[in-house]
Amino acid sequence: MGLENGLFITFEGGEGSGKSTQVKLLAQRLGAAGHDVVLTREPGGTPEAEKIRDLLVRGDGCDWDANEEALLLFAARANHVRLRIKPALAQGKIVISDRFTDSTRAYQGYGFAYGLDKVEQLNHFVLGDFAPDLTFLLDIPARDGLARSNRRLTQEQSGEDRYERLDVAFHERLRAGFLEIAGYEPDRFRVIDAQCAVDEIADKVAQFALERLVGR
Amino acid sequence: MGLENGLFITFEGGEGSGKSTQVKLLAQRLGAAGHDVVLTREPGGTPEAEKIRDLLVRGDGCDWDANEEALLLFAARANHVRLRIKPALAQGKIVISDRFTDSTRAYQGYGFAYGLDKVEQLNHFVLGDFAPDLTFLLDIPARDGLARSNRRLTQEQSGEDRYERLDVAFHERLRAGFLEIAGYEPDRFRVIDAQCAVDEIADKVAQFALERLVGR
Repeated sequence: MGLENGLFITFEGGEGSGKSTQVKLLAQRLGAAGHDVVLTREPGGTPEAEKIRDLLVRGDGCDWDANEEALLLFAARANHVRLRIKPALAQGKIVISDRFTDSTRAYQGYGFAYGLDKVEQLNHFVLGDFAPDLTFLLDIPARDGLARSNRRLTQEQSGEDRYERLDVAFHERLRAGFLEIAGYEPDRFRVIDAQCAVDEIADKVAQFALERLVGR
Repeated sequence: MGLENGLFITFEGGEGSGKSTQVKLLAQRLGAAGHDVVLTREPGGTPEAEKIRDLLVRGDGCDWDANEEALLLFAARANHVRLRIKPALAQGKIVISDRFTDSTRAYQGYGFAYGLDKVEQLNHFVLGDFAPDLTFLLDIPARDGLARSNRRLTQEQSGEDRYERLDVAFHERLRAGFLEIAGYEPDRFRVIDAQCAVDEIADKVAQFALERLVGR
């Protein structure tokens, strides 16, 4: 859980679920309501962790297996939590992260069949009990998400296409994994239909976040 | 332990203990005796792991704590073992590595006071029972080793000076840590006085290695 008066909110979901758009919209709305918001992402969020992101996400012929990926992701996450997330929460800020541990659970735990228990062991070893206060899972059928994501990558000429190059079966395991993880922690998760209109989703997300802020 | 017919030999010790010289001399002598030898080092040993080495060893202002360092070191080590060490051992080769897990035990476990138990947990998580067959600890008083190492860094104009910049007390904890680790596994370790003449050390090391090869 988050520290002191701050609130730690994460967005999760497969490729093309619209996370990045919704992260920004929530930050705008909470900012407009007078809250102090820190926007961040994983893998990354600090200069050190962004270097690890570069090792992992770019398709430059590196050969990492799921075990090595998980270790690198948690090294990045430990740095991100220590240098960016915890200090902001201790100052009472709202931290919104585009992905966090649930992505490692879904990608490495379900998608790559590394095993959820190994991810949980690493998570406990590295983060102890630290976890988001509120997590939005933007849920979309695998084929629809991939089609959206590939359109965006073509537009942006991004080199971060590593996961898009995996097959549909992988993305279907990923989606099922995310939904299962959300089912384990119904208090923390809000599952959102990512095929609704952007504004409709943003309204729902903001409403849940504001409720949680009031409930602190 | 090593796999099949191969033999996995590691060299350990503080800065300036002469490891790199002795690694090469042992490789030459075993090669001359007709053995197929793979020479490698940590952190590093594969293109992927060398990238992690760059993140860790160069003094470029990155802020990693001992926990994050240990995760990065084991990510690199897992890749090194999977892609380079185990395949060579399976082909019956002798693998000689300049540093391995004992360096993480000594640097992170003793030097940085991260705790040996955390290093052991990670080691078990990542490598299971895999360990060197034979380890040479080149032992030298901290001040003497540092003086040697600083002379070499000046000559080579190397940027890998991160550990040399730490204080003597750190290097004394490191030395004591290495000796303690060696004491836990007397069958695997051979502790060598690194202040003896280079050739004298090389003779002793080669003799121990050849005995172990005969004993396979």
